[in-house]
Amino acid sequence: MSGRPGTGASEAVGSRDVVITPTPGGVTAPAGFRSAALHCGIKVKTKALDLAIIAADAPVASAGIFTTNLVQAASVRLSRSHLDGSGGMARAIVVNSGCANACTGARGERDALRMTEETAAALACAPEHVLVASTGVIGVALDMGKVAAGIRTASAALTRDRGSETARAIMTTDPFPKEHAVTVHTERGHFTVGGTAKGSGMIEPMMATMLGFLTTDAQVRPALLHRALVASARDTFNAITVDGECSTNDALFVMASGASGTTIGENEYPALRDAMLAVSKELALGIVRGGEGATKLVHVCVSDAPTIDAARRVARTIANSLLVKTAIHGADPNWGRIVAAAGRSGVPFDVSQATVRIGDVLLFERGMPRDDASPLAAQHLREAEILLEINLGTGGRGTATIWTCDLSAEYVRINGEYRT
Amino acid sequence: MSGRPGTGASEAVGSRDVVITPTPGGVTAPAGFRSAALHCGIKVKTKALDLAIIAADAPVASAGIFTTNLVQAASVRLSRSHLDGSGGMARAIVVNSGCANACTGARGERDALRMTEETAAALACAPEHVLVASTGVIGVALDMGKVAAGIRTASAALTRDRGSETARAIMTTDPFPKEHAVTVHTERGHFTVGGTAKGSGMIEPMMATMLGFLTTDAQVRPALLHRALVASARDTFNAITVDGECSTNDALFVMASGASGTTIGENEYPALRDAMLAVSKELALGIVRGGEGATKLVHVCVSDAPTIDAARRVARTIANSLLVKTAIHGADPNWGRIVAAAGRSGVPFDVSQATVRIGDVLLFERGMPRDDASPLAAQHLREAEILLEINLGTGGRGTATIWTCDLSAEYVRINGEYRT
Repeated sequence: MSGRPGTGASEAVGSRDVVITPTPGGVTAPAGFRSAALHCGIKVKTKALDLAIIAADAPVASAGIFTTNLVQAASVRLSRSHLDGSGGMARAIVVNSGCANACTGARGERDALRMTEETAAALACAPEHVLVASTGVIGVALDMGKVAAGIRTASAALTRDRGSETARAIMTTDPFPKEHAVTVHTERGHFTVGGTAKGSGMIEPMMATMLGFLTTDAQVRPALLHRALVASARDTFNAITVDGECSTNDALFVMASGASGTTIGENEYPALRDAMLAVSKELALGIVRGGEGATKLVHVCVSDAPTIDAARRVARTIANSLLVKTAIHGADPNWGRIVAAAGRSGVPFDVSQATVRIGDVLLFERGMPRDDASPLAAQHLREAEILLEINLGTGGRGTATIWTCDLSAEYVRINGEYRT
Repeated sequence: MSGRPGTGASEAVGSRDVVITPTPGGVTAPAGFRSAALHCGIKVKTKALDLAIIAADAPVASAGIFTTNLVQAASVRLSRSHLDGSGGMARAIVVNSGCANACTGARGERDALRMTEETAAALACAPEHVLVASTGVIGVALDMGKVAAGIRTASAALTRDRGSETARAIMTTDPFPKEHAVTVHTERGHFTVGGTAKGSGMIEPMMATMLGFLTTDAQVRPALLHRALVASARDTFNAITVDGECSTNDALFVMASGASGTTIGENEYPALRDAMLAVSKELALGIVRGGEGATKLVHVCVSDAPTIDAARRVARTIANSLLVKTAIHGADPNWGRIVAAAGRSGVPFDVSQATVRIGDVLLFERGMPRDDASPLAAQHLREAEILLEINLGTGGRGTATIWTCDLSAEYVRINGEYRT
């Protein structure tokens, strides 16, 4: 089942004469990137890593996509402005966890700017060439004394061989770090794409993820890199949900060092996009697997919808349904809740033509229950990876997959006690 | 706080020379109605009441509003068709709990029709003058032998003095029955409005509630009664949410016996509407208080939005936010989640002009935190009735209140184990 692609992409995964293979590491797997992570003092109680810098050796082609929430953190506004101002060139990304620096007014703006200035001073580049991301509690100001000192220390400690510490330094409620990398061999040469991402609550990215950082040593111009980022995020980071919440701080960045010597033009673009998609999918599914309180990864696959957008809408409504998510948690093959969720999605279909499968077990066929199959479906629901398939029977060709997790009492515990 | 009205109504509550006072009872409080309830055998395990009939002495003016879910139970389709066909006249409503008779195909259609036919035969009226409602598990067929026998027994046992048994017979996961009645004194005479309703999961009615039954002994023509039903539901049954789910079976009915002798024309219309609103609000808040796993009733009041619809949309997004609902459950005054939910609602506003209060405690003012007030807000959150006030500062006049409940681990338990 894990090989089931994120369907609905207009640009297909996997292309000709290109071999994409996993490779160890994350953001520093591609040549031309160094990183450093440390505890600067934001996560007072746990003393866990809370600051990281990812840096290229010089300003390189970069791109970012950001939360669609109207309320945006200072880091989101500043990073977007830096990418616009620099024409998509960046030297480094500085990121902290434990504090979102959102809803912090003018002070928050100054603090985000100072994070880029401190990093730029340490790396001897323009502040405009530094991107910034923050994640954690909303409405709390950064302790800039600690952060600035941390930035200076980290800048002096950048290294090729500890990328996985960055994956840990960006975590908030994530139960495990998420990093992935692939190497791509094409006729024209090879290159590597690596990345890391964090969740794990307030997850329903609409044009971005919580925080995601991709790197590649391919040589690519900023506009093409941005196109590949948007294309690869659509059926990965933008196709997941944990709790239907869209954060104030969501951001997904990519930097391309060019250090592999392999240049990406229009012909090689699919290879880059597919490699970014492969890394992004692994990271995005990691966010769902590590969703707050999650015990199961759920593939919600909708087919035969009027359009792709309609299929996405139905899949998203099912994926966010509390009743579906709790039923899955309880291993109850309650397909009625799936049909009811589809019915309130706003997408027209004829329920007497619709079919629902859990795992490969047919439970509802063209409007009629098949409850004799319930025990078999319940057995599938006790696994760690669940498949829900809904065929709307409209005769349309719209197909989409959204990934979600179950809803457990642990989610309630985590989010009732998050700040206490 | 309980006196805070469901604001945003274009037709105001409370009018001139009219006194509305609570009176004991529910659906049989108004003259001209009898009811009967019994256990017919659907709720096998608990042997609880699962069938009820509410009957007037003859076909009377009646109205109904129904779920907006595309997938609609047989009872919903049949009741709508009967009201259309009869020009808004009905003699009785027959209702069962424990089985939704939804997604049951042609058999479900036949079973719903037979419920009206059995009731009509017992009461010697046309089947078209009988309305039907079902609630419970989706996708399970009714045992019509048991249901038909129950209908015959109940029809012979109709009485004025056991209306509260109907309130119990319509319950599924509801922790307590919900009924309410008011008596209205006007210059032209007096009349009574009574009602009962049930929740308590799959609650975000979009044009109706789960199941609600109102009765009145006012004399009113069907069209005016329908208008009063729509007007009174808007800021009551249609302004609540437990879990953001819209059921396949939602229906709200009203029957007017005329037995008080008080005729409702255009002049008396506001008195009828306000009385129906008073009963509906009590019942709707009862559904939220008794929401699955709920421990708190939450008033989400949005003001200074561009329009009333925009205010509703923001309030609804906050009211359905899992992060807001879990924070309230944990008594955490995490206003950042409230701001983030407002920000993803799609309504334009400037966060630097927005203000958030929990209870009467100011926590976020024109873009800046006031976290010194957190302990006081946390104290308010430990109460059973919570007030969230969000002023969007747009200079618009849109105001709305949506009622919701907290999200507890108990919700997860109930819905993970619902059918097992």
